[in-house]
Amino acid sequence: MDNTRKLLREIKADGMLTASPDLREYLTGFPSSFGFVYTDAQESVFFTDPRYAEGAKAAMKGGFISVEVAKSEQSVLDYIKSKKVKKLAVPVSRLTVPQYEALRRRRFKLIDSTPAFEAAMSVKNVEELVRISRACEIAEQAYATLLGELKEGMTELEAAGYLEYLMRKCGAQDRSFETIVAFGKNSSVPHHAPGDTKLARGMPVLIDFGCRYGGYCSDMTRTLWFGGKPDEDFCAAYDAVYGAHAAAADGIRAGMSGKEADLLARGFLREKGLDKFFTHSLGHGIGINIHESPVLGQSGTQRLADNMVFSIEPGVYFEGRFGIRIEDTVCLKGGKVAGFMKSDKKLTVL
Amino acid sequence: MDNTRKLLREIKADGMLTASPDLREYLTGFPSSFGFVYTDAQESVFFTDPRYAEGAKAAMKGGFISVEVAKSEQSVLDYIKSKKVKKLAVPVSRLTVPQYEALRRRRFKLIDSTPAFEAAMSVKNVEELVRISRACEIAEQAYATLLGELKEGMTELEAAGYLEYLMRKCGAQDRSFETIVAFGKNSSVPHHAPGDTKLARGMPVLIDFGCRYGGYCSDMTRTLWFGGKPDEDFCAAYDAVYGAHAAAADGIRAGMSGKEADLLARGFLREKGLDKFFTHSLGHGIGINIHESPVLGQSGTQRLADNMVFSIEPGVYFEGRFGIRIEDTVCLKGGKVAGFMKSDKKLTVL
Repeated sequence: MDNTRKLLREIKADGMLTASPDLREYLTGFPSSFGFVYTDAQESVFFTDPRYAEGAKAAMKGGFISVEVAKSEQSVLDYIKSKKVKKLAVPVSRLTVPQYEALRRRRFKLIDSTPAFEAAMSVKNVEELVRISRACEIAEQAYATLLGELKEGMTELEAAGYLEYLMRKCGAQDRSFETIVAFGKNSSVPHHAPGDTKLARGMPVLIDFGCRYGGYCSDMTRTLWFGGKPDEDFCAAYDAVYGAHAAAADGIRAGMSGKEADLLARGFLREKGLDKFFTHSLGHGIGINIHESPVLGQSGTQRLADNMVFSIEPGVYFEGRFGIRIEDTVCLKGGKVAGFMKSDKKLTVL
Repeated sequence: MDNTRKLLREIKADGMLTASPDLREYLTGFPSSFGFVYTDAQESVFFTDPRYAEGAKAAMKGGFISVEVAKSEQSVLDYIKSKKVKKLAVPVSRLTVPQYEALRRRRFKLIDSTPAFEAAMSVKNVEELVRISRACEIAEQAYATLLGELKEGMTELEAAGYLEYLMRKCGAQDRSFETIVAFGKNSSVPHHAPGDTKLARGMPVLIDFGCRYGGYCSDMTRTLWFGGKPDEDFCAAYDAVYGAHAAAADGIRAGMSGKEADLLARGFLREKGLDKFFTHSLGHGIGINIHESPVLGQSGTQRLADNMVFSIEPGVYFEGRFGIRIEDTVCLKGGKVAGFMKSDKKLTVL
């Protein structure tokens, strides 16, 4: 993948310099922890250190982007200066103060490239959709195996570690974020950090997880009941979250704002008197980053469009008792929601 | 743990504001992905969002640090302004441009707190040493189990995932970084990303891994030979790296610079004609961060001191053939190196 010229066209600047790992990977399709991508009308150069040079050259062979070994950030800036660049596009909101000052000292006129990156990255091309779809498939396959292995006495940390292992075994490059496994009342904390709590009969189990494939993420949450008959309050709340999920998945259309999408689920929960327990947003864009544009929440002004990929994840949380969240990674296709995930969202009782 | 007043004493400022996750955890002993710690002569306040407030209050009960829910970064800055703070210490080199500008707009005189944090964090107290020691123990225990499970046909990703699972099962909170597993010639890339390469007989195996316990990291690398008799070049190179490790572990003394420590191993490899294949530094400090002060390498000017924790990890890499690295996490005690790790560093042949 080479998105360098696409981005430069959208940003009216003489040159563009990008150093953040996610933006660099978006531009070049090549993952690296260090480097700079420089693009102008004539060329795109990926400056990196000797650790990545060989791999990057192989990955970009035959393409427009050339690979150079950079001695330092200093030398990259000197190179750009030597090209008489005046207006330079950089992701200003992500620069650290020392980086910003190094650019100012060289008297570049800086333009913020962040909005253009966010807009471009939120709409996926076919290759990106294929990778996300595979990341979803792997997550679901690993989850199905985990369900058969959940046992009394297992700790949250052990279950989280085992699920991450299963995703790797099924072909994932890595987890896409730190897996959340919450047993019992721990499920009432939306971002519970797994600990030593042991699984026992009569407990809700909330699992929020995903993996990375070809650089792209999946994100999924299921809440199930372990051992015996779930209590009535839990079932009623589950049905409400299930309904809220369906209301969003069925109702979301291209052209809606993220706020309008969020209101589909929030309104459904309001009718059940549960909206005050839905303490987070409906969803977020998913791509190279596990959280990116668009925002599906009360601050979501961006309009949803075809080929955007995002999560739908309504939830309700009752402090000290239990929490429920149901999340799929989905895509907009032909103006409507098309799911990547096939796993049942109805309540599973183990 | 409360390191807020210790840090403020070392930095001559009216107040101190800290927002980076690792520095925040160092100050409060409490992990969080969002928040601000403000300290002055009268008080320490941990401003965080509702997700963390309950947990933070419980963790800091009875201590000096109070917990407040912050509406926004804005409101935290307004609070500090209302206290007539002029000189404010912040980690300048980590601030993003928008954060820096928000501080400048309020006309604080900014002092960089980064050097004081780096110096304080590099020397561990007893509680920190206990946690690192346990993180080392868990890593070693998981590694010993993995050795019995390595099988022909296993992929690097599967082995990496399984090792991370085993660390969790042994009580780790998480991995301390993305586990490196490199089979065969992949071992010649110092930071190889695990992939679909399958384990076969007659291959070197390089595994670089560690875990987190109570917030603190361990870091360890072993290189072994899988299946049959290792070839002579491999054995000779292994002996050289083993010797370089011993030269550093036996020779490092408190008061040496990081550069002098590095030279102990580099000099040993030079005598074998292998120093040009030792393409990275000897080691790095380890604590809440997997990489922190001191640097044990050619740019290491900081003097080593008792209760510093760091890695000793000489390695040699032969492009397209194989690489060898041997790494322990160690501590300086009574002026000398005291190892946390007990695993054999002699060549293991499976």
